[in-house]
Amino acid sequence: MAERMVVIGADATGMSAASQARRLRGADELEIVVFEKGRHASYSACGIPYWVSGDVAEADDLIARTPEEHRARAIDLRMRTEAIELDIPGRQVLSRDLDTGAETWTGYDKLVLATGATPIRPPLPGIDADGVFGVQTLDDGEDLIEALVSSSGRDAVVVGAGYIGVEMAEALIRRGFRVTMVTRGSEPMSTLDPDMGALVREAMVGMGIRLVTGTEVTGMRTDADGHVRAVLTADTEYPADVVVLGLGVRPATDLARRAGLPLGESGGLLTDLAQRVRGHDDIWAGGDCVEVLDLVSGELVHIALGTHANKHGQVIGTGIGGGYATFPGVVGTAVSKVCDLEVARTGLLEDDAERAGLQFHTVTIESTGRAGYFPGAEPMTVKMLAERRTGRLLGVQIVGREGAAKRVDIAAVALTARMTVEQMTALDLGYAPPFSPVWDPVLVAARAATRAVARGD
Amino acid sequence: MAERMVVIGADATGMSAASQARRLRGADELEIVVFEKGRHASYSACGIPYWVSGDVAEADDLIARTPEEHRARAIDLRMRTEAIELDIPGRQVLSRDLDTGAETWTGYDKLVLATGATPIRPPLPGIDADGVFGVQTLDDGEDLIEALVSSSGRDAVVVGAGYIGVEMAEALIRRGFRVTMVTRGSEPMSTLDPDMGALVREAMVGMGIRLVTGTEVTGMRTDADGHVRAVLTADTEYPADVVVLGLGVRPATDLARRAGLPLGESGGLLTDLAQRVRGHDDIWAGGDCVEVLDLVSGELVHIALGTHANKHGQVIGTGIGGGYATFPGVVGTAVSKVCDLEVARTGLLEDDAERAGLQFHTVTIESTGRAGYFPGAEPMTVKMLAERRTGRLLGVQIVGREGAAKRVDIAAVALTARMTVEQMTALDLGYAPPFSPVWDPVLVAARAATRAVARGD
Repeated sequence: MAERMVVIGADATGMSAASQARRLRGADELEIVVFEKGRHASYSACGIPYWVSGDVAEADDLIARTPEEHRARAIDLRMRTEAIELDIPGRQVLSRDLDTGAETWTGYDKLVLATGATPIRPPLPGIDADGVFGVQTLDDGEDLIEALVSSSGRDAVVVGAGYIGVEMAEALIRRGFRVTMVTRGSEPMSTLDPDMGALVREAMVGMGIRLVTGTEVTGMRTDADGHVRAVLTADTEYPADVVVLGLGVRPATDLARRAGLPLGESGGLLTDLAQRVRGHDDIWAGGDCVEVLDLVSGELVHIALGTHANKHGQVIGTGIGGGYATFPGVVGTAVSKVCDLEVARTGLLEDDAERAGLQFHTVTIESTGRAGYFPGAEPMTVKMLAERRTGRLLGVQIVGREGAAKRVDIAAVALTARMTVEQMTALDLGYAPPFSPVWDPVLVAARAATRAVARGD
Repeated sequence: MAERMVVIGADATGMSAASQARRLRGADELEIVVFEKGRHASYSACGIPYWVSGDVAEADDLIARTPEEHRARAIDLRMRTEAIELDIPGRQVLSRDLDTGAETWTGYDKLVLATGATPIRPPLPGIDADGVFGVQTLDDGEDLIEALVSSSGRDAVVVGAGYIGVEMAEALIRRGFRVTMVTRGSEPMSTLDPDMGALVREAMVGMGIRLVTGTEVTGMRTDADGHVRAVLTADTEYPADVVVLGLGVRPATDLARRAGLPLGESGGLLTDLAQRVRGHDDIWAGGDCVEVLDLVSGELVHIALGTHANKHGQVIGTGIGGGYATFPGVVGTAVSKVCDLEVARTGLLEDDAERAGLQFHTVTIESTGRAGYFPGAEPMTVKMLAERRTGRLLGVQIVGREGAAKRVDIAAVALTARMTVEQMTALDLGYAPPFSPVWDPVLVAARAATRAVARGD
């Protein structure tokens, strides 16, 4: 008799796991059932801001594989079906059809939790008003675009200044809205140290975004119909026909919590290196609902990124398919685009490093993305953190134009290999005038960091 | 009494060494004398094709620091002065002033050989005719541009299809010449495997370059004035008012050879890791005149690239300045631009790997430089070599549009860290739709290579 694999959540992790398991084990060996509470499966959540902005024409473009395509590969994908209870001793899942309300218990041999994350909604007055959107799923994106199209007013407020907030602010500007961003941080792009975030501020202001920093949102003012009309702060209010929450996300693990599965400090599921939930050999979890090992700090962290989610799905599907694969951890890489500014980070920010008990030197250098004399050479700023005494690379942040973002990959690999900044100075990186100065900006930073480590005690 | 550092050759290695030594030791401690036989110092040789094409307006743009600027920092830079003999037991250099013919012996405590490389000129009839150019120094570039400007005819032939040949072919097209490239290889871009070179052929033909492959040049036909008029092959001839040699370079080590210094198979000087000539504690060498350790094959190789030359200069200047630095070796990274095609390689080609006694699997994958649904997503082809059984990464070649070239840096760092392709599959690379699909093309290749290694025995 075939084993049954039950997957909860049909986006990056869930469907990668299902597809990879199917590749390794045919339908006669393994039955695969997937529950998805939303209206879409296998889509690029990271593409939503570009759909909102109009860069990407329609939601379908973001969909890698339709439910029908999955079903054609013998994956029993049940849309609009929410898993509402786990019976772990009994190895079964209770699900509800959101259209009919029918509830069903489904037994499993292998269970995959790929429940994703939900936007953080602080308990403020009016936070659940009409017109206030978190943007995490394609359904969220669909709802937001509908609201933007039908909105009578043109004022939008983005609350929070992480990369999703920044990307959404740009998308809203391009949709013709007046955009205000309110953040309690001192600079936008909270995934960077403030000194690097300051470089992003300029690009955002240049786009016409009003930036309100160092300011807490205290609530929303709503009209008689319960629709948001303004975002409130201690001192004033900002008119808002649409509000986008960019305050980050939290793991969607209520179901797992109720079933008593082990959760970390962030609320993310705890797994082993094969992505099996700790203490449970027949339950896997991955993507935005788990904690991952930060290979630089040695700590467990929650990072919601499609790239990790896909890798987790691959590892889970390989494991359930009878192969062997692990997810060793992350180094904290993230890249983003703000107008024509490219923003990247990997490893630890200063605060992260301090919290982890690390002492370090920082350097910030200015260079260019191409040879200085080559047409189109634009400034690039690289900040580098190196551990005191050992000189081990701890983190890199880059802000610049063309070629800035993916340059951070050099540091991502160096972090993975636990290189020192001095070892990095000898890296044999690609050099030709259209692509780099003869000393790549990352090497210039590594040289400066090497000197800083040598000078330090 | 101050020590005296004598440097032969005033480009990347020589002047980096002189500048770094000066930074660490003042003029009261260290006298620095530099001999340069040419008319220019401290320039970007790699920028010459872009000067010929017109992308870079003038030679001065390629000059990082003028002789006067060097002299202002107490570096006694003697231009148009050729070192013609080394007296190693007597620790002195004989130089000749090329304008006056005056010859002088200069004693040294520390000697730096930074004599660069010269274009290979096979002993063919007419190879030294007027109108036949190697392009290695800024003087060469100056001579070529003068010839292009004054040429009555518009036919140019590039002999050889390495990256300099390819860059020069594009530059000549942009100067309004009809360009034929003749190469004995089966495809252009001999720094790639032929299957990847085939992707470059298309771009070159698209630019209007006539490609003659699999063909040996047998000589040049010259006119009564001794000016080249055609490039000859066994079967036919190609009209040529200008010929550019792109057959590679050889280390310019005649001086060193006559002095009995140790040379490798390529004719490049042999050094230790601190760039001291083997067996000579007071003689350093670096840049295009030395052999370097290929960290992937374990062999000594000759690679003429400004990026290595600058690093060597830095290491030499640090050593002579009393500090400590080494150059551990290269992994064979090179990037280039052909029209809007980006071309990159690092590590070993198939032939290199075979010659080194390595057995390996190869995979070639097609992906895109951005998320497939993102505007401007263009194809990218990645070829990867992984060692049989161990799965160690051996080499990567990439051909694509925007973002292809510098992606090779991921592999360059992975090679340095001796990662396996399976380790690479877990790399935390930058992902956002404008910069990469959720599986970066390099990761897609690493996954395919991992499967190939697993399938192999």
